[in-house]
Amino acid sequence: MSKPLILISNDDGITSTGIRKLVELMATLGEVVVVAPDKPQSGMGHAITVGDTLRLVKSDLFGKDILAYECSGTPADCIKLAKREVLKDRQVDLVVSGINHGSNTSISVLYSGTMSAAIEGAIEGGPAIGFSLCDFSADADFSHVDRFVLEITNNVLSHGLPKGIALNVNIPTKQNEAIKGIKICRQANARWEEEFDKRIDPHGRNYYWMVGNFVNHDKGEDNDEWAISDNYVSVVPCQFDLTGYHAITLLNEKWDI
Amino acid sequence: MSKPLILISNDDGITSTGIRKLVELMATLGEVVVVAPDKPQSGMGHAITVGDTLRLVKSDLFGKDILAYECSGTPADCIKLAKREVLKDRQVDLVVSGINHGSNTSISVLYSGTMSAAIEGAIEGGPAIGFSLCDFSADADFSHVDRFVLEITNNVLSHGLPKGIALNVNIPTKQNEAIKGIKICRQANARWEEEFDKRIDPHGRNYYWMVGNFVNHDKGEDNDEWAISDNYVSVVPCQFDLTGYHAITLLNEKWDI
Repeated sequence: MSKPLILISNDDGITSTGIRKLVELMATLGEVVVVAPDKPQSGMGHAITVGDTLRLVKSDLFGKDILAYECSGTPADCIKLAKREVLKDRQVDLVVSGINHGSNTSISVLYSGTMSAAIEGAIEGGPAIGFSLCDFSADADFSHVDRFVLEITNNVLSHGLPKGIALNVNIPTKQNEAIKGIKICRQANARWEEEFDKRIDPHGRNYYWMVGNFVNHDKGEDNDEWAISDNYVSVVPCQFDLTGYHAITLLNEKWDI
Repeated sequence: MSKPLILISNDDGITSTGIRKLVELMATLGEVVVVAPDKPQSGMGHAITVGDTLRLVKSDLFGKDILAYECSGTPADCIKLAKREVLKDRQVDLVVSGINHGSNTSISVLYSGTMSAAIEGAIEGGPAIGFSLCDFSADADFSHVDRFVLEITNNVLSHGLPKGIALNVNIPTKQNEAIKGIKICRQANARWEEEFDKRIDPHGRNYYWMVGNFVNHDKGEDNDEWAISDNYVSVVPCQFDLTGYHAITLLNEKWDI
């Protein structure tokens, strides 16, 4: 069997520690191609670049054996450009994104550039995984993640994923106690309650910084927040059909249209 | 009963024709507050501004009776800033976004800044609607939309929406034949197949424009693409829980973890 073709992107930018760890691990499993943003793109959600031009520049950051490009666009742009322009529609066996510096559990999946790259992979029909470490710092410790990243990726390469599914994988911060294992979860029903830090610039005008508290009202023991808090790796299968099917019947019954 | 408080945003920017039409219509139903981007934000998906500052500047674009602000951030930022800083946590009865210049049916819901403002409203617990007209032009004809925007909004104000649901409403372009009515739909399983128009800049370097074809393989007669093609207004109830529940059991059965 030929080696699987693995396309890698992220949202922290091509120079981040997390993507270097991911490239190192994926290179043991297949042929790796990297197309990642040339600057941090955290919080970009599923943005794409429709009103501006895109740049794609070859990079030697990962050595001469790994084809890599830095891209001026968003994570979703990177996957699209990679498939059409870099790989010229070669069959990609797996899209992986990350490893994100910071948690993408619960509602954060919507704001996450890391997950948008993975979901873009799923939209295009192939299996895809977004990996995040629950540590926002630029020098986060990734030394405990290898086993879990490889185990999950090997399962996906062996068994595939249902059509249209991308996995949202979150890995607890390194602690004294070893991680207990891997849990398949649902997305926790939790959210950010933002506040705005209002300041005055040197020219006397107001500006704001968004800050926020993560609030979890979900008491279930089958969601990603619960798994992380209990020191498990969480795996949430995500889909891109946003239809709330339960609401269709309800609207048809209640509405006067 | 006091007038409902209606918060309006969009992604085409505060000066667009679509938001002016929406403000005009909503002002007949309630107290309107506008917080909209100070520039076009199409394709921004659910992006938020986490690594940069935000500006919020009062606007008199809608006359002295309507409180309005232009914001330097994304549509999702606008909703968050509106609720915390402009409305100081007053109870918002409805978030409406649009009217977008261009269709947001099918997979476009993921890339849509219009829908991210509406979904942000739903995340915060209230009913929300994103309106789009299937006409991308800046001078799109909105003269046929009033009846449908009002009918849908009145239904939502009267009956509410299930918790966590935002409506994705698309209205066909004005044609000779009158629109047939309103259909509650699911999101069509269709997608964009991008191509990149590669050019050379005056300095001899490559750059790209994203272009694409919309490809619909979904033959169902219960989806938004079908409704629009049959000259109906489509209404898709959208949720922000991306969990693919059908995949949880499958992964638990197949995976060796």
